[in-house]
Amino acid sequence: MFEDQELINFASDNVAPVCPEIIEALRIENTGPAMGYGNDDTTREMETELSSLFECDLRAFPVATGTAANVLSLSVMTPPYGSIYCHKMAHIEGDECGAPEFYTGGAKLALLDGPDGKISADILEDALAKSGAGNVHHIQPSAISIAQVTECGTIYTPAEIAAISAVARKYNIGFHMDGARFANSVAALNCSPADITWKAGVDLLSFGATKNGAMAAEAVVFFNMEKAAEFEFRRKRGAHLFSKSRYLSAQINAYLEDGLWLELAGQANNMSQRMANGLSDILNTTPHYKVDANIIFTTLPERMIDALEKAGFLFYVMGSREVGHVRLVTSWNTTEEEVDSFLDVLKRNL
Amino acid sequence: MFEDQELINFASDNVAPVCPEIIEALRIENTGPAMGYGNDDTTREMETELSSLFECDLRAFPVATGTAANVLSLSVMTPPYGSIYCHKMAHIEGDECGAPEFYTGGAKLALLDGPDGKISADILEDALAKSGAGNVHHIQPSAISIAQVTECGTIYTPAEIAAISAVARKYNIGFHMDGARFANSVAALNCSPADITWKAGVDLLSFGATKNGAMAAEAVVFFNMEKAAEFEFRRKRGAHLFSKSRYLSAQINAYLEDGLWLELAGQANNMSQRMANGLSDILNTTPHYKVDANIIFTTLPERMIDALEKAGFLFYVMGSREVGHVRLVTSWNTTEEEVDSFLDVLKRNL
Amino acid sequence: MFEDQELINFASDNVAPVCPEIIEALRIENTGPAMGYGNDDTTREMETELSSLFECDLRAFPVATGTAANVLSLSVMTPPYGSIYCHKMAHIEGDECGAPEFYTGGAKLALLDGPDGKISADILEDALAKSGAGNVHHIQPSAISIAQVTECGTIYTPAEIAAISAVARKYNIGFHMDGARFANSVAALNCSPADITWKAGVDLLSFGATKNGAMAAEAVVFFNMEKAAEFEFRRKRGAHLFSKSRYLSAQINAYLEDGLWLELAGQANNMSQRMANGLSDILNTTPHYKVDANIIFTTLPERMIDALEKAGFLFYVMGSREVGHVRLVTSWNTTEEEVDSFLDVLKRNL
Amino acid sequence: MFEDQELINFASDNVAPVCPEIIEALRIENTGPAMGYGNDDTTREMETELSSLFECDLRAFPVATGTAANVLSLSVMTPPYGSIYCHKMAHIEGDECGAPEFYTGGAKLALLDGPDGKISADILEDALAKSGAGNVHHIQPSAISIAQVTECGTIYTPAEIAAISAVARKYNIGFHMDGARFANSVAALNCSPADITWKAGVDLLSFGATKNGAMAAEAVVFFNMEKAAEFEFRRKRGAHLFSKSRYLSAQINAYLEDGLWLELAGQANNMSQRMANGLSDILNTTPHYKVDANIIFTTLPERMIDALEKAGFLFYVMGSREVGHVRLVTSWNTTEEEVDSFLDVLKRNL
Repeated sequence: MFEDQELINFASDNVAPVCPEIIEALRIENTGPAMGYGNDDTTREMETELSSLFECDLRAFPVATGTAANVLSLSVMTPPYGSIYCHKMAHIEGDECGAPEFYTGGAKLALLDGPDGKISADILEDALAKSGAGNVHHIQPSAISIAQVTECGTIYTPAEIAAISAVARKYNIGFHMDGARFANSVAALNCSPADITWKAGVDLLSFGATKNGAMAAEAVVFFNMEKAAEFEFRRKRGAHLFSKSRYLSAQINAYLEDGLWLELAGQANNMSQRMANGLSDILNTTPHYKVDANIIFTTLPERMIDALEKAGFLFYVMGSREVGHVRLVTSWNTTEEEVDSFLDVLKRNL
Repeated sequence: MFEDQELINFASDNVAPVCPEIIEALRIENTGPAMGYGNDDTTREMETELSSLFECDLRAFPVATGTAANVLSLSVMTPPYGSIYCHKMAHIEGDECGAPEFYTGGAKLALLDGPDGKISADILEDALAKSGAGNVHHIQPSAISIAQVTECGTIYTPAEIAAISAVARKYNIGFHMDGARFANSVAALNCSPADITWKAGVDLLSFGATKNGAMAAEAVVFFNMEKAAEFEFRRKRGAHLFSKSRYLSAQINAYLEDGLWLELAGQANNMSQRMANGLSDILNTTPHYKVDANIIFTTLPERMIDALEKAGFLFYVMGSREVGHVRLVTSWNTTEEEVDSFLDVLKRNL
Repeated sequence: MFEDQELINFASDNVAPVCPEIIEALRIENTGPAMGYGNDDTTREMETELSSLFECDLRAFPVATGTAANVLSLSVMTPPYGSIYCHKMAHIEGDECGAPEFYTGGAKLALLDGPDGKISADILEDALAKSGAGNVHHIQPSAISIAQVTECGTIYTPAEIAAISAVARKYNIGFHMDGARFANSVAALNCSPADITWKAGVDLLSFGATKNGAMAAEAVVFFNMEKAAEFEFRRKRGAHLFSKSRYLSAQINAYLEDGLWLELAGQANNMSQRMANGLSDILNTTPHYKVDANIIFTTLPERMIDALEKAGFLFYVMGSREVGHVRLVTSWNTTEEEVDSFLDVLKRNL
Repeated sequence: MFEDQELINFASDNVAPVCPEIIEALRIENTGPAMGYGNDDTTREMETELSSLFECDLRAFPVATGTAANVLSLSVMTPPYGSIYCHKMAHIEGDECGAPEFYTGGAKLALLDGPDGKISADILEDALAKSGAGNVHHIQPSAISIAQVTECGTIYTPAEIAAISAVARKYNIGFHMDGARFANSVAALNCSPADITWKAGVDLLSFGATKNGAMAAEAVVFFNMEKAAEFEFRRKRGAHLFSKSRYLSAQINAYLEDGLWLELAGQANNMSQRMANGLSDILNTTPHYKVDANIIFTTLPERMIDALEKAGFLFYVMGSREVGHVRLVTSWNTTEEEVDSFLDVLKRNL
């Protein structure tokens, strides 16, 4: 194959390396002893910083993977005989190998449809109305989980989130947000983090950093703090409590410092816009979904796919190459040159 | 309280920072893209290096916590109606908040007694003979798990391990080793890693690095490779598959390079010897268990405990201060000066 | 409300009482001691009788509920990171409150669509081809479960079952049949029980009796006997091993004796035919699904629903009364008079 | 072997047949339809009768096995990261094949020692004081479960139960009683059922009937009704909700009618007294535990064991025949003649 250095990554934002500020933060953290398991100043600082960022009291716990953040969150929101409503394309449904079922002790994911990878309040209400709540034969609706950014690369508006929340409140179920790409949504909406979370009714947030320049760090953020104590036992029992937790928290602290997180996400978003514009110009097509953030789904002729791969571009072909559905993801370190060189390959293979 | 810088750590080897070579390895790893989830050269190299170290074919998978390594290992060794035999003082019994039960789907830990935190082959045989294997009313014996170094700081000899293995084979159960402090045992025994693992009948090893200078990295090593494929699904489902796995593997590779791991462990072991000798000279007592590695359990008068804490020494008092049972753990970065200054406090408070 | 005696049951076949032969069998069984937990002659006889009925070697285990039969069956067919394919209207999906997820340790039900409550081989193949088998991010396809009779009251032909089996074999997944109304399907198809089970590729059958005249008795039948030993541990662990198992087995033995089971099912089927014919004559409509067995889904005007309920008929209205979707189930003890009096009410309310 | 008719049962009270009144009750129940899943008058009557018996408001749910009653009870008393304290000889520990761990999602049984199969308040307090409550590394104490009658055949006094309850309240854990042989304890103590349950602080009771003349019926009785709603979902999800629940409830109703339950238990107890007296006279030994109810553990010479078996007596030899530890259990239908003929064999083999 190719040397690693020659490859240009549009495969995934988690194929990108760690941003230098975060690597440096690990080096800086590395002095002297610190008590383990989160009883350290760096972790306390992380909670304080997130509280400040979200403009509210909260509890925050670092974990190392997005799946851990999601499923530990879900585990405190549902009994084992409960169901979690989510989009049928949700990461928790399709890409976590049953981790939600495992961590919840066998709860069910109830799949909803909806355009652009988004659940609407109406669709949720319709499903909940028919859910059999209170009937002992049926699993009991317990939570709704949405992804912000969605798996399609689209973004919920604050109003859409608030509408979903109103339904959740009506049916007395919890509201979780999978924010693996939360930064990209805040950067794109140019809103306050509070606007699309607790102010819109979100109870728990998986606040992702790994896909946006961290090494392995996510924070589970409790706006509704009721289950935070239970979370701590479940995190330990899930083997996700790090002895040297400070190195997780240090990543998040560096990520938040001086707006680094939004800067990194803004770069990724901008590069997707540049790519989408270029694709539109060259191919005269529109992508499969609105390009709200840093993910593009589009269709490419097989000869272009071949040419791109030969030129060292990494990206996913979804299904058959003849059909040519591809996913392109830009990252914090994607450059204009990389986008343009990608587009050049397309032009040369028109 | 004290400034962090003034504290001297005898609390735990995971309270120590990361050794500089491993921090540096993360920086070096941090160039260019790499495919996620372990499909990267660094992770492949890790497996190769471990294979070379253990002088055999094996499969190795990086995870970030010792508990994850242990419980994922156990999860492929037992059905949910099975039991895992372990010492009553085992970390998996007392310090993992039910993670073994969680990952195994409800298997039982069957507790064995034995001096010095060690299980003997006889004790195991006696328990297995009465276990009710094949009887549908009783949970079925499935595995034995021992810790090397034990929770008491003692070390199994190759012969002791082989004797346990013979019993495990006789009763057709698996053999897991919790090697959170595996390096300390190899350094102390001055043996080949193979001698106390597969050559002595161990099927799966939790090969720890975090307690000995890594940031958060352990390798699950399959000498018996039968269940390795199942492991991969269980690791993902446990939310322990890192997207940027290369940063786990890079820690382990640096840890193994040029014998760093044994050098670090040797330093910790030597400092415990120095401490034990000092305690013996000053207090004229013997520690609660043989000091085979880097952990000492002993008894100190309360006035000494007070004085040590006042002087900035971190360590655990087990139970009441009047009784004065303390645990002292030395680390890769413990210095002679630190040990001597600890002993000086004792002398000044005789 | 009404006195119980006045009510006429079209609500469910499990609302019916126990047939007298089975009550009498319990009385006859009730002499002298018998060893517990299935180590009794009556249970051994049950296995022998089923073996004879199905014309093959098999293992058979009595349990008391249909859900227990289904989910214990599924629990030996899938790892916890597996998926069980079933129709979206399946009883295991909608009416067992998460029991499949519980017993499998968190496996997922993968829902398939298909007309008349039936899965076709093509639909299954299409789903399995896209399932992500072998990919660590995705839950792994492990089994297909179909209901014979289906939840819509339709019946699979032997050829349809064999076609599904061929797909299951191709993708190396197990094949379970939920036979809560197995008798009704055999009576309707007038086939050998073997024709729609092992000869058509079924591995495990929930052989129901409770809905067809038993008190509480189902047999889990292993045509593929590989997992029978594991089943016994899982049954005990699920708290479904009866100390006085002989009283479960006695029900099944009486049920099978002299073709009682087919006689009872035939009566129920015939009464549904009579009802369907009557409905067609009176209302000039066709039922929602083909009436293959003892269940009818149809639409009735609200005034008829009111009148029927007033007259003491028990049946389920699915959803709103204005829409008027109703389910009518006939039972082993449904009489021509009962059907005719039901139809009379309709005629009087045309 | 022997014909069933010739065997005389001292093996277990669940080897005995069903008492005629309960068989007859099933026949009487068997008229007309009744709504399924406990929505029937017979089940409502059961709850009313138990409420009257226990002189308090309560919720009661029928299940078919003692293990189901126990583990469903425990499942609402502990989170999956909790522990249930019980005697090391408890049925839930040794004879339910991991059902408690399964139903609780992986909670741990914390084993206590204590003479005569009984836990004392002091032993419980001592264990709870050291349990690590609130510490995230340790599983959290959640419940205490005692058996009344114990597995040794001994009985807790009301005062002993109240003392245990005081400790449970102090540490804020739930209190479950495994009453598989509850009738035998009430008959022996000659107390009100309330005295050894809610008045002594018990929250949940597994009220057994199967071992004392029922076919398969136990009631889970909630004195503390807080978790009753959750129980109903867990029972269904455990596949223990019977469609024809009325036949479970009918057994319990007949069992309670006119004090039948105490009459049956009294007979069993008296026969154990007669046996114990006979053993004492003949062998000049005392049984291993106080004979409070219907179970005797004693030691017999091998020649007597041989002779008894030859004469058709069923009983368990615990361990080696040379050592001769045997368990003798009397039942509701044990007669004086049976006991005397057993003793005669001993006399003839002195």
